[in-house]
Amino acid sequence: MNNLTKRTSKPVPEDVLYQLKEIVGHSGYLDDPAEIAPYCMSWRDNWVGSTPLVLRPASVDEVSRLVKVCASAGVPIVPQGGNTGLTGAGQPHGNGSEVIISTSRLRAIRDIDTLNDTITVESGVVLAEIQRRASEYDRLFPLSLGAEGTCQIGGNISTNAGGVQVFRYGSTRNLILGLEVVLPDGRVWDGLRALRKDNTGYDLKQLFIGGEGTLGVITAAVLRLFPKPIETQTALVAVRSPHAAVELLAHLRGQMAEHLSTFELMRRICIDAVIELIPGHGDPLATKFPWYVLMETTGQGPIGSLREPLEEALASALENGIADDVVIAESGEQRRRLWAIREDQGEVQHRIGTGIKHDVSIPVSRIAEFIERADAALAAAYPGIRHYAFGHVGDGNIHYNPIAPADWAGDAFARERGPINRIVHDIITDLRGSISAEHGIGQLRIEQAEIYKPAVELEMMRAIKRALDPNNLMNPGKILRL
Amino acid sequence: MNNLTKRTSKPVPEDVLYQLKEIVGHSGYLDDPAEIAPYCMSWRDNWVGSTPLVLRPASVDEVSRLVKVCASAGVPIVPQGGNTGLTGAGQPHGNGSEVIISTSRLRAIRDIDTLNDTITVESGVVLAEIQRRASEYDRLFPLSLGAEGTCQIGGNISTNAGGVQVFRYGSTRNLILGLEVVLPDGRVWDGLRALRKDNTGYDLKQLFIGGEGTLGVITAAVLRLFPKPIETQTALVAVRSPHAAVELLAHLRGQMAEHLSTFELMRRICIDAVIELIPGHGDPLATKFPWYVLMETTGQGPIGSLREPLEEALASALENGIADDVVIAESGEQRRRLWAIREDQGEVQHRIGTGIKHDVSIPVSRIAEFIERADAALAAAYPGIRHYAFGHVGDGNIHYNPIAPADWAGDAFARERGPINRIVHDIITDLRGSISAEHGIGQLRIEQAEIYKPAVELEMMRAIKRALDPNNLMNPGKILRL
Repeated sequence: MNNLTKRTSKPVPEDVLYQLKEIVGHSGYLDDPAEIAPYCMSWRDNWVGSTPLVLRPASVDEVSRLVKVCASAGVPIVPQGGNTGLTGAGQPHGNGSEVIISTSRLRAIRDIDTLNDTITVESGVVLAEIQRRASEYDRLFPLSLGAEGTCQIGGNISTNAGGVQVFRYGSTRNLILGLEVVLPDGRVWDGLRALRKDNTGYDLKQLFIGGEGTLGVITAAVLRLFPKPIETQTALVAVRSPHAAVELLAHLRGQMAEHLSTFELMRRICIDAVIELIPGHGDPLATKFPWYVLMETTGQGPIGSLREPLEEALASALENGIADDVVIAESGEQRRRLWAIREDQGEVQHRIGTGIKHDVSIPVSRIAEFIERADAALAAAYPGIRHYAFGHVGDGNIHYNPIAPADWAGDAFARERGPINRIVHDIITDLRGSISAEHGIGQLRIEQAEIYKPAVELEMMRAIKRALDPNNLMNPGKILRL
Repeated sequence: MNNLTKRTSKPVPEDVLYQLKEIVGHSGYLDDPAEIAPYCMSWRDNWVGSTPLVLRPASVDEVSRLVKVCASAGVPIVPQGGNTGLTGAGQPHGNGSEVIISTSRLRAIRDIDTLNDTITVESGVVLAEIQRRASEYDRLFPLSLGAEGTCQIGGNISTNAGGVQVFRYGSTRNLILGLEVVLPDGRVWDGLRALRKDNTGYDLKQLFIGGEGTLGVITAAVLRLFPKPIETQTALVAVRSPHAAVELLAHLRGQMAEHLSTFELMRRICIDAVIELIPGHGDPLATKFPWYVLMETTGQGPIGSLREPLEEALASALENGIADDVVIAESGEQRRRLWAIREDQGEVQHRIGTGIKHDVSIPVSRIAEFIERADAALAAAYPGIRHYAFGHVGDGNIHYNPIAPADWAGDAFARERGPINRIVHDIITDLRGSISAEHGIGQLRIEQAEIYKPAVELEMMRAIKRALDPNNLMNPGKILRL
């Protein structure tokens, strides 16, 4: 995929590059093209940009001074975290007119407050490190996703990242109490509050959460911590259809409420793919079924206290015909194997053929209708298309990623991206869904957003962008075009 | 308290009044001063304003047409719900230049979706009605507060209301998935999504939640529903200090996690007040203690399943010296009596003397420090002052409402409001707290907000207000002054 945004900005002036380097010192920047290259590329989908300078400030004060220099010189800035995004929000455009500010050296954990159940971290701290530190204090930081060993919390916040525990704990937005942000003019907004309630005006942090770096550089955040569950029960449940999966969800939620923490749907093709392509996978149940749910319950009770309620709930689901077969993990090893089926989806789908990814959401009650309609429309337009789909059903979020018919060669299917997006997103919009549930807009979906979002909403977004970044210097051309 | 904002706007022109009345028809407006009067007054704190016309539109389309007429004529609008707010956000100013748009006829429940766990309501639906409808479908809408029989959900959203279940379910903000809003120019923003994930740009609804009607008129909302708990355990726990209360909170949360749904602190004076002034109250424990916690756990398990864990957790709190005495409700009647102590605080505190109210929050870990410092500072400045205080400790939110020394007469204490606010809010700010945890700014705290909020934050708020309401026609002079 190429950079779709044509920009005509000038190169960054030499004297500005000099001033920026002076602020951060020798260890705080990269200007060797070979060292810069990885910062300009995304790990997936081939977003490639260009910049003369990657800045790696070590403090909020340095970020502020960098942004002030850029603001006065009119040089656009691309904030970047762990560079694991999926929509090109963290890559510069191709013309070399922008500088990257990487948060990777903003790595301090400033505070852990176990009575307030909060941790205050700088934006460059890697997600897994936050999980680990929380765990040391017998707490849970519930954000969990595939890139957790690399992604940085500032990027998670800017994307409003989702993951596999949203059903119970909410998206990143729900985990943030306060932010510290360097604004597009270089001033620091200290909104680093550790409060669960604060009704003193517009909740400004919400604009930066999911703002994809277009309104400022997040430098620190106060995150919520939760009691660490001491019991986990994991099950794989076979169901005949997405509708049955949604019924199962309602059934389990009624019985187990907040104990239900994960509810992930996978199509049979997802199971076949891992069995075929990744050694060590076997069929988890004796018979094949069209759909599977990977589910988990967690709790604080004595070990085993969730087992019986789960067994009862699943037994009644089998009796009522909502579920067709069940396996409950009997050991940590069996749990790990069940999870591996889900976790390997990110890798395996690339290997069975060219796919076109959709990160859509709909009301949970319309999941079945969405999948039926999208399957039928695509099968009619592309006979032999393979209906790859998995996702976070509890959140109404499906990664609906159709794969080329087995006999299509080369990039023929990739060239159908436009019409396929259109088919899928037309149905999503008809069902009042979202064309980006958890990955954001970035560059990837900016044209789709212009098609599908209400005009009045795009106008409000532009009005806010202009109000807070009047010179359009903060990650321009991401999320929206002015 | 008088209206502090001086405005010089003109009266609403006769032809504009005529056009507005035409839109809503005879049953849709009030122009008799006697009928208008209650809409111009608040039930507490004596906010009194003036308007020539109260509009009661019956549809979103009518709201839109009304706002368009006002926008083109430059007539400011005060949106109003159930008129139960505590900060004068819903009262017009005193000069009669504004019209009120009441949401009280926007009363439809548009949809209940039990598979998606959502309810879609118009903004004039009374909170208790939403609770009732949810309950009919075996669901919980957890927002719960004293005014629930009168307040309207649109007002709750505009205030980001709190209440007694925030600890488990979050403030109103956490309960909203989508909004429909008539913008200051009269256009309708259809953001009425029923999605748990939507990362397609700035999360605009967050600006209207807690926006106190200054950015638009909320006409409908999609609300989250939860499984209805089928078991409740209620206990009153005596503790020696706020610090012990916070330790108890951490102890119980570690043991019971999300089952803990309420955790309310009261000072002994609060117990004395209800016993003395309201018939039917008795001392809940054999001995008097300086502080009390009213707590509740809820769950889905078979009746009784939370009782034993609660008893164990409280027994170990007694052993460890965190708690000093405990009563667990043995019946619905006993539960009701324990709750009445907390619920009667709103009424009883007015009757024991002139009080000055503070709706503050701090990190939970600093509650004890706040109370100690504020008590000491006020006692030094006002010997004999009575330290009334209760609140939502689990949220770090204290209603810290000192009452005049018993021998002070007349309004002498009320005249000390300014210096007392200053003492309390200086300490709050030093502890990185908020001067308005759940009631909002309105007119009441607008000067305080200007003193205590960071300048950069006030500027961002003003920039957003100007971007979305450039002519300052939507509830001007509330939350902020331009």
